Amino acid sequence: MAIKPLILVTNDDGITAPGIRTLIHVMNTIGDVVVVAPDSPQSGMGHAITLDTTLHCNKIKIDDGPQIEYACSGTPADCVKLAVNEILDRKPDLCVSGINHGSNASINVIYSGTMSAAVEAGVEGIPAIGFSLLDYNWDADFKPLKTYLHKIASNVLKNGLPDGVVLNVNFPKATKFKGIKVSRQARANWKEEFDKRTNPQGKEYYWLTGKFVNLDKGQDTDIYALDQNYVSVVPVQFDLTAHHFISTLNTWDL
Amino acid sequence: MAIKPLILVTNDDGITAPGIRTLIHVMNTIGDVVVVAPDSPQSGMGHAITLDTTLHCNKIKIDDGPQIEYACSGTPADCVKLAVNEILDRKPDLCVSGINHGSNASINVIYSGTMSAAVEAGVEGIPAIGFSLLDYNWDADFKPLKTYLHKIASNVLKNGLPDGVVLNVNFPKATKFKGIKVSRQARANWKEEFDKRTNPQGKEYYWLTGKFVNLDKGQDTDIYALDQNYVSVVPVQFDLTAHHFISTLNTWDL
Repeated sequence: MAIKPLILVTNDDGITAPGIRTLIHVMNTIGDVVVVAPDSPQSGMGHAITLDTTLHCNKIKIDDGPQIEYACSGTPADCVKLAVNEILDRKPDLCVSGINHGSNASINVIYSGTMSAAVEAGVEGIPAIGFSLLDYNWDADFKPLKTYLHKIASNVLKNGLPDGVVLNVNFPKATKFKGIKVSRQARANWKEEFDKRTNPQGKEYYWLTGKFVNLDKGQDTDIYALDQNYVSVVPVQFDLTAHHFISTLNTWDL
Repeated sequence: MAIKPLILVTNDDGITAPGIRTLIHVMNTIGDVVVVAPDSPQSGMGHAITLDTTLHCNKIKIDDGPQIEYACSGTPADCVKLAVNEILDRKPDLCVSGINHGSNASINVIYSGTMSAAVEAGVEGIPAIGFSLLDYNWDADFKPLKTYLHKIASNVLKNGLPDGVVLNVNFPKATKFKGIKVSRQARANWKEEFDKRTNPQGKEYYWLTGKFVNLDKGQDTDIYALDQNYVSVVPVQFDLTAHHFISTLNTWDL
């Protein structure tokens, strides 16, 4: 009998989130699944790691299935580090993160705990994919995603990914998708609107809110693909060097 | 009288750290300085933002000088968002972050709160620089950096930076530098070593530790420049798209 691929599953919404349960369900049909995920929501954690406090990790079982599960006290990036270095017997063949409840398209990728887990796996040399659905609801419908999750994960297992590249997959909010579009990250940002309030003691405080503004009219972007009801797949790298600017910078009087 | 440039100063070690005090001191000689920095250390926070809790911001004065100072409860990225959207009357001409106590060269850039502040400013369209010194000591000697801080900041104010690019500047631990080398991010990573312990109640927990491993032998990297006692300047982008892999990905059976 062929050895099944070892698949590490994590997320940033926490181990009990419906999104990760769907992902586990599909990955169980592809390989041996080990879940190492945060014990509480970690949205917006970016690539945070835990340096100044201790980490805890408990073997638990959230629901039925052959997967092995661990809940950890840290961030998504911590979970991947713990899984690879302490929990797993061998390097996983694939790491999948998500399914995030909410978009990680465009600039959201840099704030995303879901994608930071995928990037962390990539840094460790593991092929990795982050999955997100453009629906913040806890009871979002993840069923239409299943065939795509299977197809994309199988392709990565079969083809591999180049050194330094992971995939950022976003699903539009829909019951049926037009297909998959390989895209680039749209140049967009959040126009923050801080909600300023006064506490019962008379002290001012803020809530961070904002509006997503896309000024990138390209038809090859993730935002465009999602607007057209396609599943967007963006290859993401963690060499952040702006290579195109090096020659200009060398002409500066430094 | 010419209007002086408006310079936003922040960091991730907290507003009282010696590194940011040196940076404020030098920036005061270039422009009008407003400091909006975390009220506590935020190292390793990556690009975390505060979504689930409130933010506080207090006008304070840590030491002498013409700068205006605010201490905030959030992450470095939160500080930049608050500064730009709530505190400052106009868009700053420059944002500088640091000086970080410790390296943000190579892969450290993705974990770095210092660099996340610079990137956040870049996202908002503000020329930005993150500065770091390869010395974790609280009483590290920042004096030898001063002429370089001035020179690099002045160059960015004069020349600007392209849309989507910020600078990651790292200083070797030395009393004298050979000069500045424009570099690329070295392909290296941390080899984690979790320190597993047992608490007084008999429960296991971990401390994250690790060893930095550089397998990138290129002589154009930040690590190489720093090893040779040069100040390393890496242009950093936040379009994470791995453009070089898009054509291959389009040949997949997706």
